[in-house]
Amino acid sequence: MPKKSYGELKPPERLLLGAGPSNIDPRVLRALSFPIVGHLDPYFMEVMDDTVELLRYAFKTKNQITFPISGTGSAGMESAICNVVERGDEIVACINGFFGERIREIIDRCGGRSIEVRAPWGKIIEKEAVEEALANSNAKAVAIVHAETSTGVLQPLREIAKIAHEYDALLIVDAVTSLGGCELEVDKWGIDICYSASQKCLNCPPGLAPITVSERAMDVIRNRRTKVQSWYLDLLTIEKYWLESSRIYHHTAPILLVYALREGLRFLYEEGLESRWIRHKENIQALISGLEEMGLNIFTDRNYMCPVITAIKVPHNVKDRRIRERLQEEYNITISGGLGELKGKVWRIGLMGINSNKKNVILVLEALKNALKKEGYNLEK
Amino acid sequence: MPKKSYGELKPPERLLLGAGPSNIDPRVLRALSFPIVGHLDPYFMEVMDDTVELLRYAFKTKNQITFPISGTGSAGMESAICNVVERGDEIVACINGFFGERIREIIDRCGGRSIEVRAPWGKIIEKEAVEEALANSNAKAVAIVHAETSTGVLQPLREIAKIAHEYDALLIVDAVTSLGGCELEVDKWGIDICYSASQKCLNCPPGLAPITVSERAMDVIRNRRTKVQSWYLDLLTIEKYWLESSRIYHHTAPILLVYALREGLRFLYEEGLESRWIRHKENIQALISGLEEMGLNIFTDRNYMCPVITAIKVPHNVKDRRIRERLQEEYNITISGGLGELKGKVWRIGLMGINSNKKNVILVLEALKNALKKEGYNLEK
Repeated sequence: MPKKSYGELKPPERLLLGAGPSNIDPRVLRALSFPIVGHLDPYFMEVMDDTVELLRYAFKTKNQITFPISGTGSAGMESAICNVVERGDEIVACINGFFGERIREIIDRCGGRSIEVRAPWGKIIEKEAVEEALANSNAKAVAIVHAETSTGVLQPLREIAKIAHEYDALLIVDAVTSLGGCELEVDKWGIDICYSASQKCLNCPPGLAPITVSERAMDVIRNRRTKVQSWYLDLLTIEKYWLESSRIYHHTAPILLVYALREGLRFLYEEGLESRWIRHKENIQALISGLEEMGLNIFTDRNYMCPVITAIKVPHNVKDRRIRERLQEEYNITISGGLGELKGKVWRIGLMGINSNKKNVILVLEALKNALKKEGYNLEK
Repeated sequence: MPKKSYGELKPPERLLLGAGPSNIDPRVLRALSFPIVGHLDPYFMEVMDDTVELLRYAFKTKNQITFPISGTGSAGMESAICNVVERGDEIVACINGFFGERIREIIDRCGGRSIEVRAPWGKIIEKEAVEEALANSNAKAVAIVHAETSTGVLQPLREIAKIAHEYDALLIVDAVTSLGGCELEVDKWGIDICYSASQKCLNCPPGLAPITVSERAMDVIRNRRTKVQSWYLDLLTIEKYWLESSRIYHHTAPILLVYALREGLRFLYEEGLESRWIRHKENIQALISGLEEMGLNIFTDRNYMCPVITAIKVPHNVKDRRIRERLQEEYNITISGGLGELKGKVWRIGLMGINSNKKNVILVLEALKNALKKEGYNLEK
């Protein structure tokens, strides 16, 4: 039964320094307030064209097939996988965290056979292990996460792309957390399918998943024996709406979210991708130094730290959830706990897009220090 | 290559009187500007709970499983179908318009076998035809469109629900266009799965697809032999996030769109569903009378006219597209052309949610009259 009445929305003003979503750029918020037009309006076609161009810039690609999927990052993941996989296909699934597991799950649901390459959470996937999996299978693709949000690991991709191509396999990369914050070169590195999300380093509302697909991958997709099992996520039909002049209606695009994405990308373009990568690196370095000065330990392998999110070991005897609650209730700062096997064992602090700045580094360090103190945890050992 | 620079968004102020999206309620726009919180924030849990309650009100249901899918209406359609269908399952697909065809396509992609029940576009599906299909098959479900946006037909559902249940089949209903504008009683009529979209009569941005599922249907879903082929649209896992106190993370909900949906539903709740149905009926009646006075002919079967959208025959010798362009360029009014086999043959005028009012009826009639006059079409025959 509904209540008698429902009040106004009154969300608290959080500083979102967790694993995402990040805060929304005020410019993006403004874009959301602009008048909506139809999904076939000539004005919207211009917005779409700009968005596609700006996405190509962000992904560093010339791929024709580049547009946002109308769903969150996980819809991007499912689209990437289900467009490639046909029943019985073997796919190398690289699993060193929560989102690698999700990739495996989706491959299986598409009727594919996952060839698992596992590494401990917090470590990277070694290229030798990928090579071995490719040598011992008939894999059509390798799927791997660039920035594993669950562990803070940044996965090197160049060598793995080379190996995949040597074995005539495609490389599918999850860049949900990395796009716009971490160095990423789709064309130069040889990534065939790369997908991301709007709500991390692009500071847009969640609900869109940018994707880009190489010609090599499109050849595979165009030559499938069977239709893609998902109608909604079928790249060949979405392409007709997003990229062809005929603009054949597929589904109603999330128009306001596309306004927002264009604005988030415009901001990125104005700052410049490379400057952004540097900014993210500098700020995460400052954060990590501060955390270590406080006596906290980083969970992630130090050689492969992601510049937009870091995972910190929850100290012995400290109540994970209580600290996060204090940060939220007393400082209006949201950080994330651990996912899957890291539940209760790590905190995750993200500095994504506009949130990657010195002020936030200082704020979260100070708040965390005070919360730990209040909970009686003695930092100076 | 990106351009040197990208300008500010400057969308025209359209009055959206086509097949959807409709204009966004200013209250909903305001809701979109509120601060974003995390998808696991206790405040967002309250927003989710309100949204679920208000959706139950809008669908007239007590179904536990009621929440928005994170995609547009077509994602709702795919979710409804792929959660029910397993490989080889027979499903009665009722096809009397563009969206019925889409249902068939999605059933096929889920590995189901469509038992087609066809009626001419503009006519309803007769219950006898559904009964015959059920008698001659082993169908697990009947899938049918309530308000066929492509033709303006409103499909009676009560009898078809009864027949489906007699044959132990589920009834899946597409209420993308009807929810919040047309009389719809999920529980009383015996609808098992009903999905809709945010951007029609709810005046929210496109990007969410409310869905509700009966216990009868959930029993079928819980007893599947195989996993649902889509991970993203799997109701059993989405349920754990939306409805269980554990709030197990599935994917990042489109938080701002949920704010918006809550506000759109709050507005609906304040007006009252029944008052809304009456308002939509009255305004579409006024529109139809006006169109006929102008000498235009309605395409839709007069006994089954949908109160939120109507299809008008494009008069002989009139250039469909030219008239729509004139409306858009000279009056900033968007109406829709025909889809599929009706391309070039009908115009579709929608009065959805806040757009269903007397002022808009007068405006669109006057604009259409003038546009036809300017194109040399003599209305008074």
